[in-house]
This record gives sequence, structure tokens and C-alpha cells, in this order.
Amino acid sequence: MKAEIISVGTELLFGEILDTDTQYLASQLGLMGIDLYFTSSVGDNHERLLEVLKQAWHRSELIITTGGLGPTQDDITREAVACLLGEELSVDPVLKQEIVSFFARLGVGMPTSNIKQASIIPSATSLTNPHGTAPGWWIEKDGRILVTMPGPPGEMQSMWQNRVFPRLQERTGAVILTRMIKTIGLSEAAVDEVVAHLLSSPNPSLATYAKQDGIYLRIAAKAPDLEEAQAMVSRREADVRMLLGDYIWGVDEDTHEAVLGQLLIAGGLSLAVAESFTGGFLTNTIASDPRSRSYFKGGLVANTNEAKIALGIDPALSAGDRAAAAMASLARRKLDASIGIGIDGYTESDGNTVTEKIFIAIDSEKTRQNAAHSYSVRLPQMRRRAVYQALFDLKKLLSSDG
Amino acid sequence: MKAEIISVGTELLFGEILDTDTQYLASQLGLMGIDLYFTSSVGDNHERLLEVLKQAWHRSELIITTGGLGPTQDDITREAVACLLGEELSVDPVLKQEIVSFFARLGVGMPTSNIKQASIIPSATSLTNPHGTAPGWWIEKDGRILVTMPGPPGEMQSMWQNRVFPRLQERTGAVILTRMIKTIGLSEAAVDEVVAHLLSSPNPSLATYAKQDGIYLRIAAKAPDLEEAQAMVSRREADVRMLLGDYIWGVDEDTHEAVLGQLLIAGGLSLAVAESFTGGFLTNTIASDPRSRSYFKGGLVANTNEAKIALGIDPALSAGDRAAAAMASLARRKLDASIGIGIDGYTESDGNTVTEKIFIAIDSEKTRQNAAHSYSVRLPQMRRRAVYQALFDLKKLLSSDG
Repeated sequence: MKAEIISVGTELLFGEILDTDTQYLASQLGLMGIDLYFTSSVGDNHERLLEVLKQAWHRSELIITTGGLGPTQDDITREAVACLLGEELSVDPVLKQEIVSFFARLGVGMPTSNIKQASIIPSATSLTNPHGTAPGWWIEKDGRILVTMPGPPGEMQSMWQNRVFPRLQERTGAVILTRMIKTIGLSEAAVDEVVAHLLSSPNPSLATYAKQDGIYLRIAAKAPDLEEAQAMVSRREADVRMLLGDYIWGVDEDTHEAVLGQLLIAGGLSLAVAESFTGGFLTNTIASDPRSRSYFKGGLVANTNEAKIALGIDPALSAGDRAAAAMASLARRKLDASIGIGIDGYTESDGNTVTEKIFIAIDSEKTRQNAAHSYSVRLPQMRRRAVYQALFDLKKLLSSDG
Repeated sequence: MKAEIISVGTELLFGEILDTDTQYLASQLGLMGIDLYFTSSVGDNHERLLEVLKQAWHRSELIITTGGLGPTQDDITREAVACLLGEELSVDPVLKQEIVSFFARLGVGMPTSNIKQASIIPSATSLTNPHGTAPGWWIEKDGRILVTMPGPPGEMQSMWQNRVFPRLQERTGAVILTRMIKTIGLSEAAVDEVVAHLLSSPNPSLATYAKQDGIYLRIAAKAPDLEEAQAMVSRREADVRMLLGDYIWGVDEDTHEAVLGQLLIAGGLSLAVAESFTGGFLTNTIASDPRSRSYFKGGLVANTNEAKIALGIDPALSAGDRAAAAMASLARRKLDASIGIGIDGYTESDGNTVTEKIFIAIDSEKTRQNAAHSYSVRLPQMRRRAVYQALFDLKKLLSSDG
């Protein structure tokens, strides 16, 4: 099925907002194995929108529009589609009642302008919008499918997931299942090399993505039914785990902090942090886990050398692994936690390149082990990667204890 | 001038990356007063790209393409444009030399595949790319302008700013100047209402944007020369400052932390923070200012009530403004700073809505003033707004001291 996406709205052409609807739909179509050939954006102008629609009708089998379904005069998608298909708009009493009820739930009457959102053409069936007043349309005519959806991402995505995706999936007669495998510790090129022989497989497909917290691999399998899709994904996941097991820290919606938090909760352990050099980034990251209050005591952040001393670090210790170890013990002791993480670091320059040396130590009561790792960082955005690596190192240490 | 943007690349149609090039160019064209009527994305397919180019050539006066200028077989923008205009591609010796030199600077020889990036058609002049090997093209033919630029945002934006923007500005015969005014403390609707009578002016134009660190207002003025544009921007800025002065915290590239840092440096003051409830977000934000080591001592972050007590806060103090004040004093004393900021808070529920109460106190040696503010936050994303508000409150306090 050849697909095309059209986003409607003058605001898109001002560059004031990013068109995330198109990206979302593009990735959804990709998952369904539907070929997307063109995307375009057009302003709230009847003539130009009609031109784009006519062309899409001519060259594509599935056309999806977002935007232009609001109640104001600017919102012209309904009118343009009616014109494209040579049909008349009329108010549908059921749709009208749905919009009146929507406003009633808000405790207000329906503004008269909203009545236009209840108008529809004979070849369209409406797609309910539980999050707003703009219903979408599903049209099948002359061997083509045209779907109109509202522009606000929350309304669009809910309509897509509940009303459009299932109907399209019926057509493609396939189930798509995906799984994201998350790694840290190797570069994207190194990950690519390790899984090179799997990357060319069309189904299940495998793709890599570089993210701030590591390199991700996405497995997507397409099969006639869910059971087979699950089996395909599981087999490919096993292949990936065999190759990259030591670097995998999570899947799908996992975050470093939640994965570590889960282990700490399971072990009845608590954690505290002392950071010099990383300005509270580690503390703030760990505290971002919604369950952190049950295991994370807090962090001591020294932004200057004086502050490090004021917190109780021996002034004789020079920056580096011993200072990181002292920070780890300090955090554990001061905040009465079973495990302390300490970070220290300094900046090094060889004339051309500035490198950050980051030292991370873990002081664990249980293992009486004090592991210090050091990371060299050439780009500021890599500093965060080093902090995430520290969380992963602690997770490994805890897992090996158990 | 009717403009159209075409982004080329199959990866855009997989939904794996957001097309930020189009958004950037859309906003740049808007600033120049050039009307953008259409944008589209198309994959690395000769036939489909040619179809999109033909249509653009037919309906637009300025056509800008991004992407498809790399050295691989997938990169087909040059070939498609040559085909559109019925011209022959040939290797330009000067361009070839530039690419060879680019690789020489990296200490390697030019791979043979890169030679295709040195090919050009007779009606095109090349646009130098200091950041990569793909030169752009500037074509004027039959009353139309066609510009091709590489896809990587860094290469494209540099080429745009240095090679394309100035040439287009010559055509439009106008200078555009913009200024971003940044406020905090009012909602976007409230800001809109205050400046309502200025929003409809086309030149200088005024637009509002809701950001995480406050509400921004963008002034843009178009004039025949720089002096007049500057005068227009200054007059409009004075209008805005008259209306919103109490809420303005910065302009253009300013950040809350840098604005506050500047004041602290100027006053020879130092700062420390103690946070409960906000998990180190304030500490991490202040430390993000590149100059923070000269005035920011650090932060004490308590993520649990026990940790608050372990840090030295009286267990008898219940959460709220008095606890925030105690945190502020603790930070100042423990980290030996002239000013301390303390944050405390709790969560409140009235059945349906969960509200966070955030208390922020400032303990300043100089003023011996202890100001506690409280903020009610209904949405998690608003918590950051409260923290930024704290930085602004401190800035105001410091300014009024001076």
C-alpha cells in the first residue's frame, strides 16, 4: 500500500512548531510495513490544500491528513476533502449530539461555531474523538483510503491507536510487534559491527539508534498472528543478547535509574551520592525515578574544591580515583545509606583537545568493595553517557552480589 | 516570493528522525518575509524526487532542498536537479580540490566515491561547505531560484547563514532583526492579553511562545537598513518592557542561571543550595552555567525525610516554609556561601487533583532577609517552572539590594 501524509496548518509553515504528527505516523506506518512515499505540509488555504489532496489522490492508495478540523474559519480540511470528492457536507445529528455532550461535560454550552465539526460527507464514516470536539473521517472510495485526523498530538495519537491502526492492520492482515533493547558501553559503530549480519534481515528487522543513555536496537517482527510475531521477536532478542549481553541494561520503557532502583528495592538497599565535577546530574537523574524516595537518600554536590573540603574530603587528596572513593564513603556515611556512589574529575588539555577525566567509585557496605572506574570524555554531551555508565556499573555490581 | 522546501531522505519517511531542517528554514523564511506555501519530504528515489521537483518548479519561485548530497549511490539530489533542468553533470576541478583538501585536513585521502560531490551543472554556482564534503548549489533560471543544501543540520545552517541568507536578503532588499524577550510569572494567556494590541502589528511583529523556563515574546522588524530595523526593535522592546517589566528576566540567549550568575559575580557573592522535594534539579541547573565554579559552591539534596534530618534539619519542623528557611540557612552555613537557597515541599490531594506545594526560601547574609515563597503546581512539568521562578526571585532580591 503506497501511503502519503499531509499535515495542514499555516503555523507549520512559520517554523514555530515541529511537525511531530508526521514523524509519529511515519514510524507507525513503518511498523505496519506500509510504504510511505511522500509527506507534505500546507497552510490553511483552500486552493493549495485542494491541489495537494488532488495530487495525493492521484498517486497514493492511503492518504492521511492531520489538522484543519477545528471549529474556526481557518479550519478547512473538511471543505477541501468534500470538494476533492465532489460531495456535499451536511450536519450529522449524532455527531452534533456528541459535541454537545462534550461541552456539557465541561459544564458549558456548545459555541455555535463548533457545529461545523459535526458536518460530514456521504462517503465518510466518523472516527470518534474522546479527547476533543473534532471527529476524524474514514473514507474508502475508488480503491483508495483517505483518513482525516485532528492536529493536536494527544487527540491524533489516541484516534490513530483506537480507530485507525486496527482498521489498517485488518487490511494488511498482519500483526507487528516491536521490542527495544538498550545497551551502553559500546559505540554505535561497534554495535553495528557486532550485529551486522542481522541488520539486513527484512523480517524481523533490526535497527540501531544512538541515544543519550546508550545505543538502542529495535527489533520489529511482522507475522499473521500475535503468537508468531512474539516467537520471532523472542528468537531475535535471544540472538542479540547472545552477542551483546554484557552491554544490555534494559528494554522498551526502562530507564537506567528505574532498573537500578528495582534492584535496590529488591535487595532492601539504600543509596546516596556525592558528586564533584558533575554538578548534581547524577543526583537529579536518580531522583527522577518515581519510586526513588523508597531507596535514594540524596546527594551531596560540591561544585568547587573548597566545597569538597567543606563537605569533609581530605584537602590532601588530589582529584581522581582516591577522591572519588572518598566521596563515595562520605555519601554513604553522611546520609546513612547502604551504598554510596562518588564522582570526581578534572579537565585535561593536550593543546587541541580538551578531555574530561571522570572517576566514579562505589562504596558498598555489603561487598566491602570499592570499585573505581575512569572515563575519558571528549565531548560535553558524552559526560552524561559517563554518568549513565556509572549507574550501569553499580547495577552489574549488585547483580553479581546476588 | 513564493517559496517551497523539499527535504530528501528515506530516513525521514521512516519516522526515525524529526525533520528539523524544514522547521529551521521555515522560521528563517518567515523572518525574511518570504511566503512559504508548501513543504514536502521524499525518499531517495529518483523518479519520485523528480516528480516533486517538477511540481515545485511549476508552482514556486524559490525552491530549497535539503539532503541527498552525500557520496553514496543513495544520494541523488544532484542527478534529479540536473534531470529537472535538462543539464549535464560534470566534475568541477576546483570543487574536487576543495574536497581533496577537506580529507587532507583529516589526514586521509579522498575515497573515490566522494568525487561525485564535486560534480555540478552549468547553471549552478557552488556554495562552499566548510563543515563537510557536500557543497550546495545556487541556481537561477527562468525567473526561479533553486538552492540545494546538505541534510546534516550543522552543515546546512552554516551554509544557510553564510551563503544563502545574505543572497536572499539582497533580493528581498530588507534587513530583518529579531529579539527574544523572556518572562516568567504569568501564563501565556495572561501575557497575550497584556500585549494584545501589539500582536496584530505586521511589522515589527510580536509573537508569544510558552517554554519550560517561562513565556517568550519574539519581536521581529523588517526595514530597508540595519539602523532602522534596530530602531524599530528598540521601540517595540520599550513597549513590551513598559507592559511586562516586572516579569522580564532576560533576552535572546540568556538562561536563568547565567543571568543570576552574572549578578553574583558582579556583587562578589557566592551561592549554595539545599533541596528537599526537587531532587537536585535546582543544583544541577545552577551548575549548568559554564561560569558557575566561580560563584556556586554546591548543593545538599535530601530525597527523604531521614536524609533531611541527617543533613541537620530539626525533625520538629514540619514540611513547608519554615523547613525551606532552615534548608537555606543550612546550605549557606555548611558550604560557606554568602547566599543560601532552600527548597522544601509536599504533595496535597483533594480527591481528584494532586497538587505539589513548593516552598522556596532565600537566606542572604547581606540583606539578613529571609524571603519564603510558595508555589502550587498541578502538573509535573510545572515543577521546573517553580524552580526557575526561584532563580528569578533571587535575581530580583539581589537587584533591589544594589
